[in-house]
Parts: sequence; structure tokens; C-alpha cells
Amino acid sequence: MPLVDSVLAQYFEDALKRADAMAPDYALLWQSLQAATYGGKRLRPALVLSAYAGLGGPDPAEAAEVAAAFELLHTALVLHDDVIDRDFKRRGVPNLAGAYRSRAAGRGVPLEEAAHRGQSAAVIAGDLALTGAYRLVAASDLPGELRLRLLEELDAAVFASAGGEQLDVEFSLPGRRPSLQEVLQMSRLKTAVYSFEAPLRAGALLAGAAGREVEAVGTAGRYIGTAYQLVDDLLGMFGDEELTGKSNVGDLAEGKCTPLIAYARLCPEWQELAGLLGGTPSAAEVRRARNLLEECGARGYVEDLVECYAARARAVLAEAALPAALLAELDGLLERAVQRSR
Amino acid sequence: MPLVDSVLAQYFEDALKRADAMAPDYALLWQSLQAATYGGKRLRPALVLSAYAGLGGPDPAEAAEVAAAFELLHTALVLHDDVIDRDFKRRGVPNLAGAYRSRAAGRGVPLEEAAHRGQSAAVIAGDLALTGAYRLVAASDLPGELRLRLLEELDAAVFASAGGEQLDVEFSLPGRRPSLQEVLQMSRLKTAVYSFEAPLRAGALLAGAAGREVEAVGTAGRYIGTAYQLVDDLLGMFGDEELTGKSNVGDLAEGKCTPLIAYARLCPEWQELAGLLGGTPSAAEVRRARNLLEECGARGYVEDLVECYAARARAVLAEAALPAALLAELDGLLERAVQRSR
Repeated sequence: MPLVDSVLAQYFEDALKRADAMAPDYALLWQSLQAATYGGKRLRPALVLSAYAGLGGPDPAEAAEVAAAFELLHTALVLHDDVIDRDFKRRGVPNLAGAYRSRAAGRGVPLEEAAHRGQSAAVIAGDLALTGAYRLVAASDLPGELRLRLLEELDAAVFASAGGEQLDVEFSLPGRRPSLQEVLQMSRLKTAVYSFEAPLRAGALLAGAAGREVEAVGTAGRYIGTAYQLVDDLLGMFGDEELTGKSNVGDLAEGKCTPLIAYARLCPEWQELAGLLGGTPSAAEVRRARNLLEECGARGYVEDLVECYAARARAVLAEAALPAALLAELDGLLERAVQRSR
Repeated sequence: MPLVDSVLAQYFEDALKRADAMAPDYALLWQSLQAATYGGKRLRPALVLSAYAGLGGPDPAEAAEVAAAFELLHTALVLHDDVIDRDFKRRGVPNLAGAYRSRAAGRGVPLEEAAHRGQSAAVIAGDLALTGAYRLVAASDLPGELRLRLLEELDAAVFASAGGEQLDVEFSLPGRRPSLQEVLQMSRLKTAVYSFEAPLRAGALLAGAAGREVEAVGTAGRYIGTAYQLVDDLLGMFGDEELTGKSNVGDLAEGKCTPLIAYARLCPEWQELAGLLGGTPSAAEVRRARNLLEECGARGYVEDLVECYAARARAVLAEAALPAALLAELDGLLERAVQRSR
């Protein structure tokens, strides 16, 4: 994605120069932020560019800044989400908070205090990435009306993901029993909007697509994103760590309120299952929890939900009469999202 | 400040409506953010409007959105700064993190875990306020070129305060001995730029002032802001809690690296003083630390610095040939900033 990379490279080059002029320690934070941004798969920029090109956008350079903005938004949300989840690793490697934690610990700061230093750096770095995303859209060369529409998309994405994040925190309060409906909504708000719906809508808007096309790719994106997140939840419980690179014990240990758990709460198996959540479960306990989630039907239910959202996405796409190339691309995206679970 | 208040009221009304449509728990976060924003003294919006009117801006309504943006920026930075400093109160009242901590504790979450919940809510709320500030400027009706200039001011403010915040964290690492120069720079970056320099420059830009006038109010603002922050440091060590509403033990207990401490480090008294920093000092230890800071000359040095920055501000203002009314206002601002220490 050379166009997006070059926007980001320019963005970081400028920032690094300014930071270095202030203090080398500040430049180090920017380097760490750049490294965090470069670790991603560029899923969101790819969606912006796909929708843009697929709906007749003539010059991808026109969409590059907005595409890059969604990558910075992703970096920011991941940084702050990791602070909230107290994660110091991502894909097995120390994240920014983890790197700053090690740095402080290496200088003799006690580990818990060092963790707080790491999280502090991640809060600050996330703020920089978040404002960077707005900056890229707000200062772009786009015509006024279009620029405002794109700011609204970015804003809707931030609004939704902050809401999803807050609900995620709320739902884990003792005594709080969110309904399946609520948990699905939380999951959609936290991830699907900013990762799928908003980038696709932004690409369509940039291409000057008709309103119904913008709606169609957005709605399809929301369904694909929801399916993607549900698959993520399944992998977080039943996945093969070797293949997914993601811990399949973390969700259990954190007592996270995923749709799997929300469903299991309604079943008689819940009494035993509840005792297995939180803390550091043994291998036998993990196996038992997985069996219970299968026996009570939670796994099957969520797998059905994945198919259901995939079908809804296909229906929206089929009805929208989108250009064939874009359809094929979104179909491929959907299949990749869903197949991870099989 | 009815114009700014009405921009903020509209902003929160819209957000509350949208949040409430998603989930009542999310609306509660927005209400808490609104309460956090309404607690302030509106210093930064006042500076935007003063510079605007003082440099011939004809219609304050033109400056209201940018002025409100600086208030939201302040709210965001305070929320995240309190997370980094692990403060759960501000001016003796629970801040947003403190309120959410109590809420979680009230539902049976253990206190330390409840504190993390509170901080998580504050991270999310700060993100919303931060993007709200960009939104207000980026979506304002200002002409394109001016809008870009103002975005740059906002950006410079965020860039500086994030840098100052990060340096503040770095400087408290064991073995790190920042120079007086470095500590002064940190303090300027963290507060003076976003609280004084940028709002004044923004107001001048909005009024269509000449480049040298923009520079003059900005530079004066930087000096006034530095003096203000130095006075704050003095009050944090020697102030009367009854009068300032600010703990005069907090800085000592946290082992904060203020210019007072940076100076004292160079003195023979440091050996005894170092033992009194951090932890929870007794009343006798606090008195002793204050005496040592006076004996070694740190207090006098910082008081002189305040006068020095005040003089520099006055010199810039005198040289700039600004309109008399604006000069009087900035002089008043400077006097109020400095007199707090007397």
C-alpha cells in the first residue's frame, strides 16, 4: 500500500523532526508510536481504498490521507484498549506499554510502578495517534463538503468505539448481566464500526458514490465486522494458539463478557462454568470450560450467528447492485473473516 | 461566557442524544464528561476571546467554536493527566476517574480494580473530549486557509502538551537528573503552550491580526504561562491549602521534579532533602523540607524566575504596540498569575 505508507511516513517524519527539536525522549515516544502503527495489517486503509476504487474513484492518491487516518485511528484505539485491558503484549511481542514498562523496570523502577509508566506512555502516544487521524482528514485537500462528511465518518467511528469500549468495561461489573443483544451491540460498536463500516463508507464517499451505495457498503461492512468479531471471540476460546497467534485462555482468565458467555449464562451449565471464569485457570479447567460451552450450545449458537451475519452481509451486497469487482472483493473479505473459524 | 457555553451545550446535547440511543451507560459517561468540562474556569476560551476582540475581531460568535475547542482540549488533557498522576480528585472533589471508581467499588469491585475501572472511563472520556476539540475547529464555518492555521495551533498545543507530559514521566525515572533547563522546558510544554500561548495565538489569527501581533501575544502568553506554572509549583510546596484549594504536600509526596527540586539537587542540602521526598511525609518532615528548600535558595530562585518571566512578558507586550485595551487585559492576566504567589 505504497500511497498510504508514504502518507504515514511523511506524517511521522515531520513529527519526529519536531519532537527531536524538543527532546530526544519525546522523539523516542514518536518512534515507538511509529513502530506500533507499522505493526498492523493495514486492513482499514485497504477497505477505504477498495471501496474507493470499486465505486469508480479514479485516483487512489485522493483517498490515501483518509485511508492513513483510519490506520492511525486503529493504532490509537489499540493503544488505549491495551491500557484498559492491562495488556502489555500484542501478538506475542511487547506493545508500546510493554516496551516502556521494560525500560522503566530496567532502570530500577519496581514492576507495578513500571507498568504504570508503560501505560502512561501508551495513553500519551494514543492521544497523538488519535489527533493525527483527525489532522490528516481535516487538513486534507478535499473539497469542503466532502471533507466534512469524512470528518463525520471519523467521528462516528470514534463515537461508536468509545461507546463499545465503555460498555465492555460496564458489562464486567459484578451483578451486571448484559443480555445477548447488549453484548452483540457492544461488540459491533467497539470494532465493527471503526474497522469495517466507517472505512468502507469513507471510501465510497471519496469516490462520490450514490447515497444507497454508501449505505450498502456500510451496512455490509457492519455485518462482516460483526461476523469477524464473533469469529475472534470463538478463536479466543477454542482457537489453536499456534495458528491464531492469540491466547485462547485470555478471554477465559479475564472473565470477558463475550456472546459465548452471555449465551452460557442462560443455561444450567452456567453454575459450574461461572466458577471457572477469572483468575488463572489450570489446563484441566480450561478444557472443562470449553466442554461446558460446547455442551450448553453456546459454541454452536455463536457459530450460527457468524453464518447469520455472513448471510445478511451477502444479502445486502446482492441487493445493492454494486460493481462486480467490488462485490468480489467484499465477498472475499467476508469469506476470509468467516473461514478463520472453520 | 454565553457564546462558548452555548457551543458546548449544543455539543453535549447532540452527543448525549446519540449516546442515549446506543446505551444509557454510555450516556452516563457523556454526562460525566460534560460535568468535567463545566467545572473549569474557562481560562482558555477567555484568552481566545480576549485576543480576538482586543485585535479588532468584530463578532465574538466567529471565535466561539475555537474558544470552546480549547476548553474541550483542557478537559481531555486534565482527564488523561489525572490518569497518569493517579489522581482521583480535583479541587477536593472526585474527578471522573474518582466517580467511576466509587461507582465500581459500590458494586463490590475491590478498590484497586475499581481504581482501574475509573481510570479506564477517564481514558475513554478524554479521547472523546480530545476528538471533540478537533471536531469543533475542523467543522467550523471558518474560511479554508484560516481553518487550517487554527488546526495547526490546536495541533501544536497537543504536540507540546503530550511532549511535556511524556518528559514529566521520564524525568521521574530513577537516576534521571534533568537539568533546570530541561525542567523549565517540560513545564512550558506541558501547560504554557496549550493554556496560554496557543489560545492567544488562535484568537489573534481569528481576528485577522498581522503576523507580528500573533507572534507577540503568543510569546507573551508563553512567558505568562511559564510564570503561572512556576507560581503553581511554589504554591504546591509553600501555599496555604485553605487559600489555594490545592494540596501543599502532594508535590512533595509524589517526588515531582519541579524547578524547585531541580535547583535543590545542585545544593549540599540535597542530601537531607532527598530522604524527605516520596512516600507520605509527616508534618515535621514537610516543614523540614520546606525549610531546606528555603535555606538552599531554591524558593528564592524560583520566585526570581517568576519575576524574570513576568518581565520578559511585559517587555514583549511593550514592544509589540498592541491596542491599549488588550495590553491592559494581558497585564491584568500577568498580575493575577504572579500575585498568587505573594
